[in-house]
Amino acid sequence: MPELRKDPIVGRWVIIAPDRAKRPITIKNEPSPAGSDFCPFCEGGEEHTSSEILAYRDRNTKPNEKGWRVRVVPNRFPALQVEGALDKCGEGIYDKMNGIGAHEVIIECPFHEVSMANLSEEYVREILWVYRDRLVDLKKDRRLVYGMIFKNVGMAAGASLEHSHSQLIVTPIVPVNVWEEMNGSQEFFNYRGRCIYCDMIHQEHAAEKRIVLDTPNFVVFAPFASRFPFETWIVPKNHNSHYENIQKNELDEMGTVLKTVLMKLEIALDKPSYNYIIHTSPFDSQAVPHYHWHMEIMPRMTRIAGFEWGTGFYINSVPPEQAAAYLREVEVDVSGGRK
Amino acid sequence: MPELRKDPIVGRWVIIAPDRAKRPITIKNEPSPAGSDFCPFCEGGEEHTSSEILAYRDRNTKPNEKGWRVRVVPNRFPALQVEGALDKCGEGIYDKMNGIGAHEVIIECPFHEVSMANLSEEYVREILWVYRDRLVDLKKDRRLVYGMIFKNVGMAAGASLEHSHSQLIVTPIVPVNVWEEMNGSQEFFNYRGRCIYCDMIHQEHAAEKRIVLDTPNFVVFAPFASRFPFETWIVPKNHNSHYENIQKNELDEMGTVLKTVLMKLEIALDKPSYNYIIHTSPFDSQAVPHYHWHMEIMPRMTRIAGFEWGTGFYINSVPPEQAAAYLREVEVDVSGGRK
Repeated sequence: MPELRKDPIVGRWVIIAPDRAKRPITIKNEPSPAGSDFCPFCEGGEEHTSSEILAYRDRNTKPNEKGWRVRVVPNRFPALQVEGALDKCGEGIYDKMNGIGAHEVIIECPFHEVSMANLSEEYVREILWVYRDRLVDLKKDRRLVYGMIFKNVGMAAGASLEHSHSQLIVTPIVPVNVWEEMNGSQEFFNYRGRCIYCDMIHQEHAAEKRIVLDTPNFVVFAPFASRFPFETWIVPKNHNSHYENIQKNELDEMGTVLKTVLMKLEIALDKPSYNYIIHTSPFDSQAVPHYHWHMEIMPRMTRIAGFEWGTGFYINSVPPEQAAAYLREVEVDVSGGRK
Repeated sequence: MPELRKDPIVGRWVIIAPDRAKRPITIKNEPSPAGSDFCPFCEGGEEHTSSEILAYRDRNTKPNEKGWRVRVVPNRFPALQVEGALDKCGEGIYDKMNGIGAHEVIIECPFHEVSMANLSEEYVREILWVYRDRLVDLKKDRRLVYGMIFKNVGMAAGASLEHSHSQLIVTPIVPVNVWEEMNGSQEFFNYRGRCIYCDMIHQEHAAEKRIVLDTPNFVVFAPFASRFPFETWIVPKNHNSHYENIQKNELDEMGTVLKTVLMKLEIALDKPSYNYIIHTSPFDSQAVPHYHWHMEIMPRMTRIAGFEWGTGFYINSVPPEQAAAYLREVEVDVSGGRK
């Protein structure tokens, strides 16, 4: 059973998960042509994963067999586990709890595709629906308070398998970085009575120079204080604190927006490693006026060095205005893609 | 001129430094035998660096010529620059300031040695003295409030040159992670009237299982909430909030302690990439009872993935108790090393 331990000085939680060390690392430095090696995520390899939690499947196909389009399974080397009661205890000045939670893998397609940008718009939409469905389901569990959906692509971004997939980690405490965002936006709201993300949307529209893409329901921009070259945020225009409360028309549009942005990044940066994370509110809060869900995409062109670790200060050599100008110019055709 | 920009939500500062993209990357994935390629940090290459700020030199040798043992030069591709007045201004809801500060490189030896662990104890001591001397000098500048000394070793830790060196970045604001440590330890002090680091030393002594090394003036341990496999902290036993106030006998001992720990890590992990950072108090505070300087060493065996970025939660597959037990057993002889 993994263990959650809290740093007594800054309140940062660490998951000590010895079983994670056993996971296979099959990714290569240079991704090889699709399908050359065995991949447990490809159709036909269902017995190599844990039993599925959810799958979007063709009619008349059975769980854990062929016929699925998107499939969710428990991570075989989980950072947190769903079984058991939540025990919290102290150890002198230290605090710890057992690692109750969930760690799921969203396998995004049955064929061996390494890039989400190569999937069709419809496919990307289905993946976004799966994210929503899993959050809605997991928030029923009273032990759990936060669900984080993220994607690691490429070795430099921490991926260990190349088949296109994302992950969901659900935790029994609100992670410290999420607290910081909730608190920071709450403070702004207390002072000005407005959502800071809504204000950012207005200011980015007025300034124009950091905008990458502007659609009826979304604005995509390089944030003013970008930590990484070509960091890109996708922010819904309608205020909404919880991703799982997204409207159908928004979600459909987001499929196209996400595919567009990933295609632009792949062309601009020649298939970079990247992470994306959906930032959303904790399970236990109702819709709140100060927080605004969004997706942050972070290409991993540079390595994080000692200075960044120690200070929380990032050094970014590409001004976001330049990155946005570049990405705006990259033309892409989203009508294709594997279905 | 680099620019400092503040994230309006969480208060994180980012340095936008376009010139940094121009720096040369000469490090190899597999470090080659010493001295095979041109290195601007080797003796004889003084004209390839900026003019020296400080050097420990043999008598009768001149600045920027041969004859030095440890040499400090401005970083040629600085994240922050020392010239100019500090201008702060807003841009709508955003805050920014010009990138006033200092970014120095401490070249640790004139010969092409890639590992500090291969230097003699006396050499390591001299480097630790240089750290102190630079902090004492820079804190005279009223525009500057924080000095961070850190070391990146190996590509995975963000190093771009392999010749053994460390860096010093001095900033016009206190970095957010430092604030968190100062505030967290202040809260503990307000509540219990004791320094939390002093308490940690007591608890680690009592528990024993996370201790790597115990000397008259230092305790070295794997912290309870280790973020990384084999994360190791060197903590002075005497309460002292500022590294630059270290006593001579402590500093001499720390040379031996640091060399010992680095040798142990190199043997245990087969010359890992790593970062170390000296955590110390801001320039503008007097000696404070709640904060306690220390050094954090973070081997970089794993990559940081999306989950860690989004949450501030780390997943560590090696319990610190196991790491400490392993490191305790590794026997090293510190009497050798290049002089």
